Amino acid sequence: MSFGPLPFQYRQVHHSGIVVIDLEAAAESYATLGFVDGERFAIEAQGIEAITFHCGDGYIELISPTDPDGAIARFMAKRGEGVHHIAYRVDDIDAALTELAARGVRLIDTVARIGAHGWRVAFIHPEACHGVLTELVETGE
Amino acid sequence: MSFGPLPFQYRQVHHSGIVVIDLEAAAESYATLGFVDGERFAIEAQGIEAITFHCGDGYIELISPTDPDGAIARFMAKRGEGVHHIAYRVDDIDAALTELAARGVRLIDTVARIGAHGWRVAFIHPEACHGVLTELVETGE
Repeated sequence: MSFGPLPFQYRQVHHSGIVVIDLEAAAESYATLGFVDGERFAIEAQGIEAITFHCGDGYIELISPTDPDGAIARFMAKRGEGVHHIAYRVDDIDAALTELAARGVRLIDTVARIGAHGWRVAFIHPEACHGVLTELVETGE
Repeated sequence: MSFGPLPFQYRQVHHSGIVVIDLEAAAESYATLGFVDGERFAIEAQGIEAITFHCGDGYIELISPTDPDGAIARFMAKRGEGVHHIAYRVDDIDAALTELAARGVRLIDTVARIGAHGWRVAFIHPEACHGVLTELVETGE
């Protein structure tokens, strides 16, 4: 298969999202690993709370469900703790979503929405990414 | 818990390792996602073949087992396709391993070994990382 020139660029492996049962315990484990200055936040609409650790210009995002019926809680009931998603920073998320849709890629979000930290984000279905829930992030940097 | 000053630094979310059944099919899927210039290599000692895609100064590593009895094949039999490990670039892997051992972190490799591309690598046990097999990479950059 071949396509025309890509109208957007992948810039960076931006963050990995890791689901954990006990956010405090997980933050302590990652502090023991040497990650520092965790920042805590909640996204009520998604039923999660999270602690992020910077790593260079990327992040680790520890995520714990606050809604026992939410997507994260269901994921963890099925798969346990571990990597939930991988996020890539793109320069133009609108161009990316338009292009990926044109290429027949199965998208969860066909239109970007506002995620943590005000980033514009969209998820690609794991079926399109060999089992990896994949997030695109446009940070405005 | 608190520790002394960290004698090493996490510099970057360096790569994510993704296990796939069919390496060619996976490479085509990621090309459709817009990742370009995949580089193929094999590591016979680990019973794997892989294709990496650059993403900024990081990587995606698609991994497929060539040894049906190897660790990757066993992982995939249990968990299916998806994220296998997350790798962080550190500036001094020897200092990192010494410090993490002193902190009681469960290591798979207590001494760095030579990985793909001549990098010095070591794995931390997923039990220490809330379900995430975690790799340290010293690239010499």
